Amino acid sequence: MRDYIITIKTFLENKNLDELKSLMNEIDIWDLIDIFKELGFDNDSVVIFRLLSKERALQVFEQLDVGLQEHLLLSFTDEKSMEIIQNLAPDDRAMLLDELPAKVATKLLNNLSFEDRQKTADLLGYENETAGRIMTPEYISLKKHLTVKDATEKIRSIASEKNPETVYNIYITSDKRVLEGTVSLRDLLISDDASTLDSIMNTDFSNVHTHTDQEIVAKLLQDRDLLAVPVLDNENRLVGIVTVDDAMDILEEETTDDIFDKVGLINISQKETNRSAALIKGSFSDAWKARIPFLLITLFGGMLAGVVIGAFEETLESVAAVAVFIPVIMDMGGNVGTQSSTIFTRALILGQINIKNFSKHLFKEIMVGFSMGIILGILAGFIAHFWQGIPGLGIVVTIALIITITLATTLGFFIPFVLVKLGFDQAAGSDPIITTIKDISGLAIYFLLVQYFLSHLL
Amino acid sequence: MRDYIITIKTFLENKNLDELKSLMNEIDIWDLIDIFKELGFDNDSVVIFRLLSKERALQVFEQLDVGLQEHLLLSFTDEKSMEIIQNLAPDDRAMLLDELPAKVATKLLNNLSFEDRQKTADLLGYENETAGRIMTPEYISLKKHLTVKDATEKIRSIASEKNPETVYNIYITSDKRVLEGTVSLRDLLISDDASTLDSIMNTDFSNVHTHTDQEIVAKLLQDRDLLAVPVLDNENRLVGIVTVDDAMDILEEETTDDIFDKVGLINISQKETNRSAALIKGSFSDAWKARIPFLLITLFGGMLAGVVIGAFEETLESVAAVAVFIPVIMDMGGNVGTQSSTIFTRALILGQINIKNFSKHLFKEIMVGFSMGIILGILAGFIAHFWQGIPGLGIVVTIALIITITLATTLGFFIPFVLVKLGFDQAAGSDPIITTIKDISGLAIYFLLVQYFLSHLL
Repeated sequence: MRDYIITIKTFLENKNLDELKSLMNEIDIWDLIDIFKELGFDNDSVVIFRLLSKERALQVFEQLDVGLQEHLLLSFTDEKSMEIIQNLAPDDRAMLLDELPAKVATKLLNNLSFEDRQKTADLLGYENETAGRIMTPEYISLKKHLTVKDATEKIRSIASEKNPETVYNIYITSDKRVLEGTVSLRDLLISDDASTLDSIMNTDFSNVHTHTDQEIVAKLLQDRDLLAVPVLDNENRLVGIVTVDDAMDILEEETTDDIFDKVGLINISQKETNRSAALIKGSFSDAWKARIPFLLITLFGGMLAGVVIGAFEETLESVAAVAVFIPVIMDMGGNVGTQSSTIFTRALILGQINIKNFSKHLFKEIMVGFSMGIILGILAGFIAHFWQGIPGLGIVVTIALIITITLATTLGFFIPFVLVKLGFDQAAGSDPIITTIKDISGLAIYFLLVQYFLSHLL
Repeated sequence: MRDYIITIKTFLENKNLDELKSLMNEIDIWDLIDIFKELGFDNDSVVIFRLLSKERALQVFEQLDVGLQEHLLLSFTDEKSMEIIQNLAPDDRAMLLDELPAKVATKLLNNLSFEDRQKTADLLGYENETAGRIMTPEYISLKKHLTVKDATEKIRSIASEKNPETVYNIYITSDKRVLEGTVSLRDLLISDDASTLDSIMNTDFSNVHTHTDQEIVAKLLQDRDLLAVPVLDNENRLVGIVTVDDAMDILEEETTDDIFDKVGLINISQKETNRSAALIKGSFSDAWKARIPFLLITLFGGMLAGVVIGAFEETLESVAAVAVFIPVIMDMGGNVGTQSSTIFTRALILGQINIKNFSKHLFKEIMVGFSMGIILGILAGFIAHFWQGIPGLGIVVTIALIITITLATTLGFFIPFVLVKLGFDQAAGSDPIITTIKDISGLAIYFLLVQYFLSHLL
């Protein structure tokens, strides 16, 4: 792959476009797609994209991220852009138009055929990140009185003429387009030619609604090992399907979002599919917008923790050795808290924790924290005692660590839980918030203990 | 769902087993599966599982996690266990037998029919987490000289008699079982009845080898929107296929592993599929084994950071206000570092960063860190100056933060990169390691600056 890119760059430098063109149209299509992904926003990608045959260009285009698609499209003439847009599947088209500058999108949309425009506009009418937005209207639906033989014949002709997203799941609808049942091509294959669809169809089918959150749709496909799920409107009419390949991409996208949210990376891009790419390939100002907000919270949190230390300045001046254990208190709280928040957010997503059993799991986590606090606290206390040789400081470090570690596990479960409960997108910023709370309280506990014990013992 | 569980518990308490049995065999199968997932290791699950019809029991069993499967199986008589084991798909059976105590597994394996035993043993012979281990040997393979009509007839009879994992992808093999091409049922449907398979088969098919890492297999299915991928041995003979439903589960499992590795949660369970469940539902000693190792590293790291503070005890005793900014230095470094390591590990998994373009991305990240350091450092410096009123302390805080934040972004990319390069499983423990390094260096820089500037200015 790397070799290909070097070859391409050499051809480009030598303006050897003919040879480049034949290379581009010969190599494996998946290598070609990887080359475009690797080149990213490099302007060479625009040049070599123009050299591709029409068919290859579309195959590559379909597989690229929306951000890259936009980059390519905006560099083309209107005519070439239209050609690509026309040939995309309606759901991919809707996703792309959504990202383009409104002016460009409207222009392209207006140039589509009435039917294509209708399909795309329909999809764009649904809320972002819902089943309605990600479904494709290109499914096969048949009537229930058809025989297996006739149905197979119909599917054959639809599959050859149009390009339905899947031919393996067939949807049986009433005259009013209400979904009555589903049949798989496998069912058709093993059924008697003369049976009618209503005798073999599955009426206990999984389904979602247009407003169902895309993550729930993807999870359903995963949990039930489905290849596609039908999407119904409020009157239970079939309006589209979501296929397993889209479900995989959604799960990956949602996982990335959850992880970024947790460490306080703001979503600055509307291109949800591209949040990682935006951070890796975006501009400096994008990086600042994503990263600085929660760092400001950390900064003020750190200052508040400083206020706590400042309040005990006299203690520090009399026993400076006390400052030596500030990092242990802060770091242990930090890493324990991150472990807990990571365990909680994964278990929530994987369905092992839910709102109903939360208090049971929180209690167990607090007990885990308390027991780890005892083990680690005693160890740290011993070290503190023999290292600094100040009587009582070992006990202070032990007690402070037990309390801080227990508190950190509690916060690690509790803060993301509260954020989710409050309706925030997952646990946005939970780690920076935990840092702030555990630092202020951890240091306050430590210094209060120091003051109490050392005044008695020194 | 919650209502069902309350009803079940009431029936159980009243020993109303007949009514419970009819309820269990009436409700929607997916609700039933959810009930078992919710009950988890609760012993009631064993009782109600026995009440299920044979068919329902198997449907439920197949959908449960390996840990839960083991829990149920070990509570049954040998006969009932055998019945379940016999009816599982070979790949699911291999995964389960792998988890059972060796004695139990051997016994169950020995009681299988020769054919079933062979299939399972073959799968168990491959390394954990490879394509060989997760593939199913139940695919359809045909010879290339068959006509479309004959092939369709064959598929029909295989689909009705056996239970292949998919009928939608058909594999064309030579007499020596070498894979020559693939055909989809869709291709067959739209092709002429009289064509032979070799005229319509796709010879440029995606494939993997038995030793290919399962994550790479899953990524391939995702990237290329495949429903299944063929698995070849060293002689390019077809030995199995991996289907998209398994790919989704693998991607989720690998994501969970990566996230847990990063925050330093050790993998204590061989049940890789169950690492989150093991932490949520496991014993206290499991929690300790998973969590304490990297916390010990943090503990000693924090102590070393304390050594740095201890080295400047005199400075602290003369200007105790210096301690006030320790939390800001530590917290900013911590959160910036976590942001960077999160961005790096996600981009690595999503393929946006690779070993070849690493230095380019590292350089950009350092620049982002430096620019954020300037913004946040100046802000913090102003606050420090006006708050403490010590001339020079503002400048010290500014410079220390610029260096610490830049260093933290560098470490956030560099530490996980080095860990992956060294061959560690992803970036195991990168966050605790980053914490330790950035604390020691951040505090050293801060105190050196304090010493230098304050001695000049005080």
